[in-house]
Amino acid sequence: MNLILLAPHDLQDDHHAVVRDPRRLRHLLDVHHAKVGDELTLGVAGGKLGRGRLTHLDAEQALFRIDRLDQPPPAALPVHLVLALPRPRMLARSLEHVTALGVKHITLLHTRRVEKSYWQSPELRPEKIHQHLVLGLEQARDTRLPEVDLETRFKPFVEDRLPGLLEERRGLLAHPGMPHACPRGIDEPALLIIGPEGGFIPYEVERLLQAGCEGIHLGERILRVETAVTALLSRLF
Amino acid sequence: MNLILLAPHDLQDDHHAVVRDPRRLRHLLDVHHAKVGDELTLGVAGGKLGRGRLTHLDAEQALFRIDRLDQPPPAALPVHLVLALPRPRMLARSLEHVTALGVKHITLLHTRRVEKSYWQSPELRPEKIHQHLVLGLEQARDTRLPEVDLETRFKPFVEDRLPGLLEERRGLLAHPGMPHACPRGIDEPALLIIGPEGGFIPYEVERLLQAGCEGIHLGERILRVETAVTALLSRLF
Repeated sequence: MNLILLAPHDLQDDHHAVVRDPRRLRHLLDVHHAKVGDELTLGVAGGKLGRGRLTHLDAEQALFRIDRLDQPPPAALPVHLVLALPRPRMLARSLEHVTALGVKHITLLHTRRVEKSYWQSPELRPEKIHQHLVLGLEQARDTRLPEVDLETRFKPFVEDRLPGLLEERRGLLAHPGMPHACPRGIDEPALLIIGPEGGFIPYEVERLLQAGCEGIHLGERILRVETAVTALLSRLF
Repeated sequence: MNLILLAPHDLQDDHHAVVRDPRRLRHLLDVHHAKVGDELTLGVAGGKLGRGRLTHLDAEQALFRIDRLDQPPPAALPVHLVLALPRPRMLARSLEHVTALGVKHITLLHTRRVEKSYWQSPELRPEKIHQHLVLGLEQARDTRLPEVDLETRFKPFVEDRLPGLLEERRGLLAHPGMPHACPRGIDEPALLIIGPEGGFIPYEVERLLQAGCEGIHLGERILRVETAVTALLSRLF
């Protein structure tokens, strides 16, 4: 937690905030070893970053005086990430990684090799997804939450949503064996599509290429989804 | 497990292997749903990759007939990674990520902001480290284990070992606020040094720069060690 991310209900007025949830209180006490008088980095969800001073801390609440909120959050990555739904633990970590890296649009997609049971996981509940996104923002000192949407059927996504998404973005399908190595340092908006453990099936690859995506690869090593997504984003942007 | 990695003691002769450890047996049964007659990717630790057929499988052992072992493992990254010792869970995952990415030399270093208790973690036992390296190799279909060494004191490392390491490698110190962005697609041997959560202290940065390292950064976002290490390696190579 490199940032105290304040939700609207944490703000008492323009200059005072209170934090009452156990997770952040425990972090302040046990990890930061925070003391009254400490200056910390604060940010308002969706807004600016600044500094504030801890004026009270006990097991029930932390009070902050906000000194300034004048820094814009770091730039977002110009990417819409489409991720075949990973298994729950991998999903949790991947959401944190990509949020910390600056992704603002995430679509979780069903594909043939996604186990159907993953869609029933508690990790997909909105409050759990929100929690992982917040952890990513707190890590990277960002304030703007990504949007996450769920596409539980492959065909309607490819036929009805993908063409619109590709109108203003370069479509990149990351899949082993594709003809081109992942490009480096592109500076245009992109839609990056990453398959499940075990990969897309040939039919899915064909449909995504037909829709206008370029097939790219990261070499002959097979990476876990959470490693691959970080490696791809870091190389692309 | 995209590869059955055979240790020397798994080999019965040039054409037959047996796997008896519970982890791999469980994986074959529960994840692969392997059946007698299945063809699988095999590799010999430190050697070549190939294909083999499962000739017997029960709860006690899996027997393989090795059909061919003729593929070299994927290329290694030309990097020696020096990582300030992360907290145990992060260490475990980071070892798997970097092994899967192809790192072959890893030094775990003590720095001021590494908690001393981390050096007592069971994750640092040779057999635990070995286990995470093997998981990384099995993931990426690689056979060559990285070497891992422990440097429990910063100063002797910088004074006695670092100069020799930098004779044939470009030294890169990844640290927030350094003057240059992480370079892309270098094709020369490198020594990559990554600090702990909380970063290097100014004295440490100074010593590493004096020793000949270039300071590089990944932008204003603060990343977890396991995200940063993947992002840096992917951008560099």
